[in-house]
Amino acid sequence: MERKMKECLDACLACISACNHCLDACLEEEHAAMMKACIRLDRDCADLCGMAIQMMTRNSPFVKEFMLLCAQACDLCAEECAKHDHDHCQACAEACRACSRACMAMAV
Amino acid sequence: MERKMKECLDACLACISACNHCLDACLEEEHAAMMKACIRLDRDCADLCGMAIQMMTRNSPFVKEFMLLCAQACDLCAEECAKHDHDHCQACAEACRACSRACMAMAV
Amino acid sequence: MERKMKECLDACLACISACNHCLDACLEEEHAAMMKACIRLDRDCADLCGMAIQMMTRNSPFVKEFMLLCAQACDLCAEECAKHDHDHCQACAEACRACSRACMAMAV
Amino acid sequence: MERKMKECLDACLACISACNHCLDACLEEEHAAMMKACIRLDRDCADLCGMAIQMMTRNSPFVKEFMLLCAQACDLCAEECAKHDHDHCQACAEACRACSRACMAMAV
Repeated sequence: MERKMKECLDACLACISACNHCLDACLEEEHAAMMKACIRLDRDCADLCGMAIQMMTRNSPFVKEFMLLCAQACDLCAEECAKHDHDHCQACAEACRACSRACMAMAV
Repeated sequence: MERKMKECLDACLACISACNHCLDACLEEEHAAMMKACIRLDRDCADLCGMAIQMMTRNSPFVKEFMLLCAQACDLCAEECAKHDHDHCQACAEACRACSRACMAMAV
Repeated sequence: MERKMKECLDACLACISACNHCLDACLEEEHAAMMKACIRLDRDCADLCGMAIQMMTRNSPFVKEFMLLCAQACDLCAEECAKHDHDHCQACAEACRACSRACMAMAV
Repeated sequence: MERKMKECLDACLACISACNHCLDACLEEEHAAMMKACIRLDRDCADLCGMAIQMMTRNSPFVKEFMLLCAQACDLCAEECAKHDHDHCQACAEACRACSRACMAMAV
């Protein structure tokens, strides 16, 4: 497997992990109502990254378009998470940004 | 739920069913080697339709772009299936075409 | 396709739809903190029902065990949703119960 | 995150990668008809491992039962792949066995 794909697979796995942890932790925050956008984007991002892993490793003809969509989801999720001071949000923003870069590298 | 979405959910379910049945039946065909493209597209199409159901019902911000990608997968799968005389391929081509139309209606 | 499977596919689709709608609506409720368990179970239930659709239509060797697990998730989600008076929770509880019965019918 | 879960996430990712590569390569083999069982189990195993990643990182109440089911799929896939001399089958068998062990460790 080429290095670029290996890096993207690892970035997707880290992103799923960060998004799902962030979602779970957001539900426990005192002001859960403020975390709605974060929760929704965490879920979309985790699910799209999960499917991205499948699309890359099966060499799908749709992989480039899918990675582009996945990168967009990562960007939006990173943007939202970055607004919140919680450690889990900041960690998620970072994982999303790294994943977006790796997905973009696969999309070209 | 609006009628357009209900129709698309039903079309996606019918498409998943037709694609997975076609994939399974292709593996049993005498000339399975000729069915490779069909098998691969059946799988992608079934998986994308499955995720489309999730994206629509959770009102994701990525739903329009996802439905567009799903429609493209349906079109490609329909095109490939239409080349083969097997009943399961013809039935799958039809389900994919109907699903593509329904996805496009959700994408605009 | 046998009638029992067709009914289960429709029940799974209805359950995904009800769970994802309930999850989304719970996030908008005034007391979102009270809806945490509901939100988590809605998500698990929607995702397991989505995979159940794939497992049934591809005739997986794991289908019976998977349907059993899916039925358990539907039961737990129904139980939690039934505790809340919101229309979306009550509707979700009903969809989950119907789906659980249909999954059990496929599991035997 | 505890070490046991980190190891299982990595094992699931490696297993998805090996299964999807094996599936794709099996379709290209001269005797694709002999590879039917392998192709079907590769797909189930890759999809279940993908969902296992989600279930673990979101701390689902169904995680133990899901990991048990995932381990069974890995075992069956390893058993089938081990019968074939192709490098991709042998590599897949090894990845499945490692993943099965890691899933079992999460299931107890």
